[in-house]
Amino acid sequence: MSLQGNAMIGQSGGPSIVINASLVGAIEAARDTAQIETFYGALHGLDGILNEQFIDLFREDYELVEQIRYTPSAALGTSRLKPTDADLQRCMEVFKAHNIRYFFYIGGDDSQLACHKISQLAKSSDWDMNIVGIPKTIDNDLVITDNCPGFGSAARLAASAVQFVSKDAEAFGNCEVMEIMGRNAGWITGATQVGRQEERDGPHLVYLPEVIVDPDKFLADCHENFDKWGYLVIAVSEGFSFAESDIPTTSQKIDEFGHARLGGVAQALSDMIEEELGVRSRFDRLGNLQRSFGLAASQVDLDEAYAVGRDAVRRACQGESDVMITIQRKSSEPFVFECEDTSLMSVAGKTRVVPDEWINEEHNGITEEFIEYCRPLMVGRSEPMPVGIPHYPRFQKHVIAGKLPKYERE
Amino acid sequence: MSLQGNAMIGQSGGPSIVINASLVGAIEAARDTAQIETFYGALHGLDGILNEQFIDLFREDYELVEQIRYTPSAALGTSRLKPTDADLQRCMEVFKAHNIRYFFYIGGDDSQLACHKISQLAKSSDWDMNIVGIPKTIDNDLVITDNCPGFGSAARLAASAVQFVSKDAEAFGNCEVMEIMGRNAGWITGATQVGRQEERDGPHLVYLPEVIVDPDKFLADCHENFDKWGYLVIAVSEGFSFAESDIPTTSQKIDEFGHARLGGVAQALSDMIEEELGVRSRFDRLGNLQRSFGLAASQVDLDEAYAVGRDAVRRACQGESDVMITIQRKSSEPFVFECEDTSLMSVAGKTRVVPDEWINEEHNGITEEFIEYCRPLMVGRSEPMPVGIPHYPRFQKHVIAGKLPKYERE
Repeated sequence: MSLQGNAMIGQSGGPSIVINASLVGAIEAARDTAQIETFYGALHGLDGILNEQFIDLFREDYELVEQIRYTPSAALGTSRLKPTDADLQRCMEVFKAHNIRYFFYIGGDDSQLACHKISQLAKSSDWDMNIVGIPKTIDNDLVITDNCPGFGSAARLAASAVQFVSKDAEAFGNCEVMEIMGRNAGWITGATQVGRQEERDGPHLVYLPEVIVDPDKFLADCHENFDKWGYLVIAVSEGFSFAESDIPTTSQKIDEFGHARLGGVAQALSDMIEEELGVRSRFDRLGNLQRSFGLAASQVDLDEAYAVGRDAVRRACQGESDVMITIQRKSSEPFVFECEDTSLMSVAGKTRVVPDEWINEEHNGITEEFIEYCRPLMVGRSEPMPVGIPHYPRFQKHVIAGKLPKYERE
Repeated sequence: MSLQGNAMIGQSGGPSIVINASLVGAIEAARDTAQIETFYGALHGLDGILNEQFIDLFREDYELVEQIRYTPSAALGTSRLKPTDADLQRCMEVFKAHNIRYFFYIGGDDSQLACHKISQLAKSSDWDMNIVGIPKTIDNDLVITDNCPGFGSAARLAASAVQFVSKDAEAFGNCEVMEIMGRNAGWITGATQVGRQEERDGPHLVYLPEVIVDPDKFLADCHENFDKWGYLVIAVSEGFSFAESDIPTTSQKIDEFGHARLGGVAQALSDMIEEELGVRSRFDRLGNLQRSFGLAASQVDLDEAYAVGRDAVRRACQGESDVMITIQRKSSEPFVFECEDTSLMSVAGKTRVVPDEWINEEHNGITEEFIEYCRPLMVGRSEPMPVGIPHYPRFQKHVIAGKLPKYERE
């Protein structure tokens, strides 16, 4: 349905290096259509909607917006709020009060599920609005889309970081275990092997959450590689654990979505190696740099992120709703993609893990197909980096006043 | 004394992003003098000397050597061996067997001490040789020299990383504690404030090992900054601990030099903040990336490292010995430096901490003088970065055979 009124956009979940490119793509597309009168930016995602914390994105300086396209992390702020039914009802009241006819939400599978619920609620309450989800997750675990904006840059950073710590481990003749984000899907961890140009380069072994590994086989593989290369580098997903083993590899903390806040597997593996091989082993965790380290941005990732933002607005204005934008790969070399869409129901709450056939038989590495899939997504920017310490702008934040009584969450 | 014969060079201690620039500076200077006949590269520092593991650096391809100038981490391999008297005697035997008349060792204060001891031993055993130390430490804690090659790049990486995780923390409205290398000296940690362009930018608070902080004052500062900016970013040195407090902030492991292998202070502070402020706090450790993350290399640091390597060979060939090359700053803007030298005794085993007057009165930040000192050292390279995953060459390693019976360490 083609609608006239205001639009709103928010950013959700873990930020990425390119999530602002999606936001800017949406802002620039929205400027070009007369259907959108005021473009609301919700601060801190759903939190901002519930509490009517909005800024007017059309009043932001054009040059500043262009700079924010290349600014890592979520410029509107983000949220991990898991909405209750009452929260979703409140969202609808807010949308009605502000005549919001278009809603865009940049996030992962949890966020797409929230979008779908809002979409159903809009239908059942006879409020005409078009809702389009914009994909974002460094974990690359959304289904249907070829890849997720955010992944290419995180993969590029992780692969670069593993190359660098490999040089350090090789200089010492040590072992090194690098822990990489990924609860259920090992996309980023697997992608670190894209940086391995010779067999003696790290990472010699990678362990994804998808695989079952016997601790004895693990130690045997460590022995073999250390003996062969004189050093050993392992990349491991935070969600990896040994099968049927009581070796503790995870912490017990829980995040706001009810997911485990994982950590500690790199240290656990490193300790095992040190004990078994009798050589020094260190560990590193790439941590929050994976979502923010702009010096490692992928150009393809930036382009994809911008495109899905633009396309979301275009499709919503043409009447599409209850869909998420997807990336369709047309060719790998050169990398060419197009945007398509898919129903929110088809992606909401689903996780795409690394397929079995892209993991080697020994469960300690990835296949050439995985590398061919990832490599084109991990190409850096050709422009020179800033010679100063990187610094990025913030929105001017022209506030739009609330219209409803204050909301108290139950 | 001007001597004719062979020369040897080794790399020691923790690698840095620019330590190979020093090695290449030395190789290129050595090629230009007829006094040096064969240039031995000792693999893994003192370990390689004791075990006669050498390569012929003059036989390495010239173009490859030029590439290694920009390759992070120690291309010859490194060592943390703390030599015993017997080890030093063995070194002398090896030097005599291979007619080594020049010895260069790239390292920090422990390595300069080893050089000085070898120098004394050479004198007492009537073996004419010139020994010159080449400064290297990311910790920037050598005395007399204006700064230490390795520091500028580590500081640039740390400051960049803190800017990036600050964007992530700000997007969530969270707290973030970043742990940075530095046992006794907080140079790198302090330098992260160079990236702070506005008061609301992180890092809002920095804690160096040099300061005494009361836990209550720490929490009060956290409260104040979080309330003011809506997020909070702290940079802390691994060696920081509260005064007269039993809050555990360090691990108990010991490295090969007898130093504590520190870790855990970021997590300890983060847990305190989470409990006291009632908001989510995360922590990251920059870890081994500080010694190796080539994408953050400082051009000034690369230039300095190359210059001290060249100058060491030049001075040794002119007859100087038992000295370490130093950096003398001639001007900060533009940054101009010259190489000088100082006796090994004047630097060996000494540590330069951040001076009191460069730390603010509240003990939670640094002064403008500190920033003016650091900033010129942290300027990035103006060339474009590689668009692929960074990959670096290794030496061809033309082996020079040993001449002595195998050495067994006591």
